[in-house]
Amino acid sequence: MADQYAQSREDNGRTEIPAIRWDEPPEGPVLVLLDQTRLPAEEVELVCTDAPALVEAIRTLAVRGAPLLGIAGAYGVALAAARGFDVDEAARALAGARPTAVNLAVGVRRARAAYGAALSGGGDQQQAAEAALVAARALHREDAEASARMAELGLALLDELLPGGGHRVLTHCNTGALVSGGEGTAFAVALAAHRAGKLRRLWVDETRPLLQGARLTAYEAARNGMAYTLLTDNAAGSLFAAGEVDAVLIGADRIAADGSVANKVGSYPLAVLARYHHVPFIVVAPVTTVDLDTPDGASIEVEQRSSHEVTEVTAPQAAGAEAGGGIPVAPLGTQAYNPAFDVTPPELVTAIVTEEGAVSPVTAEALAELCDRSRQVTI
Amino acid sequence: MADQYAQSREDNGRTEIPAIRWDEPPEGPVLVLLDQTRLPAEEVELVCTDAPALVEAIRTLAVRGAPLLGIAGAYGVALAAARGFDVDEAARALAGARPTAVNLAVGVRRARAAYGAALSGGGDQQQAAEAALVAARALHREDAEASARMAELGLALLDELLPGGGHRVLTHCNTGALVSGGEGTAFAVALAAHRAGKLRRLWVDETRPLLQGARLTAYEAARNGMAYTLLTDNAAGSLFAAGEVDAVLIGADRIAADGSVANKVGSYPLAVLARYHHVPFIVVAPVTTVDLDTPDGASIEVEQRSSHEVTEVTAPQAAGAEAGGGIPVAPLGTQAYNPAFDVTPPELVTAIVTEEGAVSPVTAEALAELCDRSRQVTI
Repeated sequence: MADQYAQSREDNGRTEIPAIRWDEPPEGPVLVLLDQTRLPAEEVELVCTDAPALVEAIRTLAVRGAPLLGIAGAYGVALAAARGFDVDEAARALAGARPTAVNLAVGVRRARAAYGAALSGGGDQQQAAEAALVAARALHREDAEASARMAELGLALLDELLPGGGHRVLTHCNTGALVSGGEGTAFAVALAAHRAGKLRRLWVDETRPLLQGARLTAYEAARNGMAYTLLTDNAAGSLFAAGEVDAVLIGADRIAADGSVANKVGSYPLAVLARYHHVPFIVVAPVTTVDLDTPDGASIEVEQRSSHEVTEVTAPQAAGAEAGGGIPVAPLGTQAYNPAFDVTPPELVTAIVTEEGAVSPVTAEALAELCDRSRQVTI
Repeated sequence: MADQYAQSREDNGRTEIPAIRWDEPPEGPVLVLLDQTRLPAEEVELVCTDAPALVEAIRTLAVRGAPLLGIAGAYGVALAAARGFDVDEAARALAGARPTAVNLAVGVRRARAAYGAALSGGGDQQQAAEAALVAARALHREDAEASARMAELGLALLDELLPGGGHRVLTHCNTGALVSGGEGTAFAVALAAHRAGKLRRLWVDETRPLLQGARLTAYEAARNGMAYTLLTDNAAGSLFAAGEVDAVLIGADRIAADGSVANKVGSYPLAVLARYHHVPFIVVAPVTTVDLDTPDGASIEVEQRSSHEVTEVTAPQAAGAEAGGGIPVAPLGTQAYNPAFDVTPPELVTAIVTEEGAVSPVTAEALAELCDRSRQVTI
C-alpha cells in the first residue's frame, strides 16, 4: 500500500480548503489533497509522502479534474525528487495513472523537464528537486490566473450570446475550485455570472456513476450561495424541452487538434440535446487541454472504468470505495459498460473558451492559432 | 398506516413470481404484489387487504409499470367491493395515486363500471363485487395476450427495420414481466428476439433516480439468460456514437392523441440521440395507453416526485425507502428537479407497436384509426 494517510480538518470546517497544497513539515515534504471521494459528507485531507500514494489518489479520484491533475502531476514529480526517489519512474507512473486527461501528462512533463534541465545545467539533486518544485508552483499559480481569465472571457461570451441576462446554465460533472488552482473552468464562469448578478439558475447534473455533480458541484454552489438545482442526468432533456436552459457550460479533459472534446461521460448527449434545441454548448478549459498531437476524436483514448462503479452505489463518507465496498443495486454478476469520458465532435461545440481567448466556430485552424499564440506568450 | 404486510417467499426463490395475484385465504380476499422496491436483493410479497394499502404500494412504486398499474387498479376496486368498503372512494383514490399513467385510471374505470352495471342490473353487493373481480381478471388475461401479440409484432418490425439480424437493442426503465400480466411491452419484444436467436445485446439503461433498469430489467434479463450489459443513462450517447445501438425499445405511460409519448424520464434524450444517429426509436405499449382525450404532449400531466429520490441513494433491500431513509449524496438542503416522466414528440418516434398493430409514421389519424379498430374488436 502506498504511503498516504488521512487527517481530519475539523478545526477548519468553514474556511476554504484548497484542493491541493505542498507542505514541508519536519518529517519531510508532503503533498496534501482534499479527499474528494469523501465530499460532501466529510472534509478530510489526504497526505501523500511519495508518488505511488499520489498515483493511488488519482486512480481512486480522491484528486480529479483536468487542470488539478496537471498540478498534482507536477507536484508529484517534485515530491519524488525532494524525497530522493527515482524521478523517471515516478513521472512514468504519474503520467499513466489516468489516460484521458492530457493535463496530467503535461504537468508531469513540465516538472520533469525542469528537474532534468537543472541537472544538465550542473545542479545537484537538491537543486534539481527545487527546480521541479518551482515548476509545479508556477503551474499552480498560472492555473489560478488562467481560471480567473477564463471566467472573465466566458462571462463575456455568455453576455454576448444571451444579451437578455438572467442566465440559466446547465453544467455537468465538477469544474470548480476542486479541479483547479483557482476557481475552476466552466464553474468559474457560472460563479462569475453569479457574482455579477446575472445567474438565474445553475442546473447541476448529478453525473453518474460517481455523482461528482451531486457531491461536488452542489457543494461548491451551496458554499458560494448560488441558486442551484440538482437533477439526474437524464432529466436534462425535460429542461431543454421546457426552454429552461439558456446555455451548457462544461470543462474538458482533452481537446484534439480538430476540436473534438473529451469530457466526463454524459457531455456528448448534452451536446446533441443542445444542438436539437438551439442552445449554446460552451467548453471552458485552459490551453494546456488542447493536445495538437491528438489529431481527432477517434484518436482519444477513453478510460474504461470498473463495472462496480455502476453496479454498486457507494456512500461518499464510506472509506474504501476503491475496494468495491458499495451497496449492490444490480443482480450479482451484472457487467457494466462504464466509460469515464465521451467525445463531442467540434460541429456540436459552439465555442471553446480558454485563458488565451475563445474559439468560435471551433476549427482546427483556429485552435492551432490559439496554441501558437499561447506558446509565444509563454516564451 | 394502510393495511399491507410483507411475506417472504424463500420457499419459492427460483420459480417465476408473478408481479400481481389475487388470493382468497380464509381471512378474506387479498391482492398480493411482488414488492419491486426490494428487487433484486429480495423477492418479498406485499399483501394488500384494502385500497389504501394498494394506493400506498402504487405511490412508493412497490407496484409500477403502466399495464400492471391498470391491472392493479382494477383488482383494487374489486378488493374494496369484496371487502365491503366504499367502492367510489377506493376508485377515486386509486385512479389518482399516480397522475401520468393512463392505464391506471382505465383499469379502475373498467372494474368500477362492471361493479356499477351489476348493481344497476339488480345484482346485490356480492354479485357486484364478483363482477368487478371478473372485470379485473379479464383485464389481467387480456394484458397477457396483448403482451404476447406486441412481442410478435415488435419482433416482426425489428426484423423489417434491421434485416441483418443480430439486434443490439437499447432499453430504458423496466418493461418486462414485472409491469404486465404477461411478459411486458418493450422488454417482451427483446425477449422474443432473444428466443428467436436474434438478440445480440440488450443495453440496459440504469434509469436514475430509482434504478429500475439496474434493479429490475437486469434482473429479468439475467433470469431469462439474455446477453445484457448495464450502463449509466448518460453513457448511452457513447454507444450511439460508436454505432453500437441498432434500435431503441421503450414502453409508454400515456400516448396523447397526436402521438406524443410520456414515458420514464430519460426517454426523450434517447429519442433525440436516436434521431441524431438515424437509429429507430420504437415505443411498445397496449392500445389502452393511447388516450385520445389528451390532445397533445403539452396536455400530459407529468408527475413531479420528491427531491430525496435524487439527493439520497436508497439500497434496494432497505425497507422504509418511502420515508427518505437513504444515504445522502448531495449537501443538506439541496433541492432537486425530479420529474418521473418526460414527453417525446411524435416526430421523434419511428413506430408505436400495440397489440392491434404498429403505427408508423406516428400521426393523429393513424392512432385514431387504431383505437377505432381496437374498440370494434372489444365490442
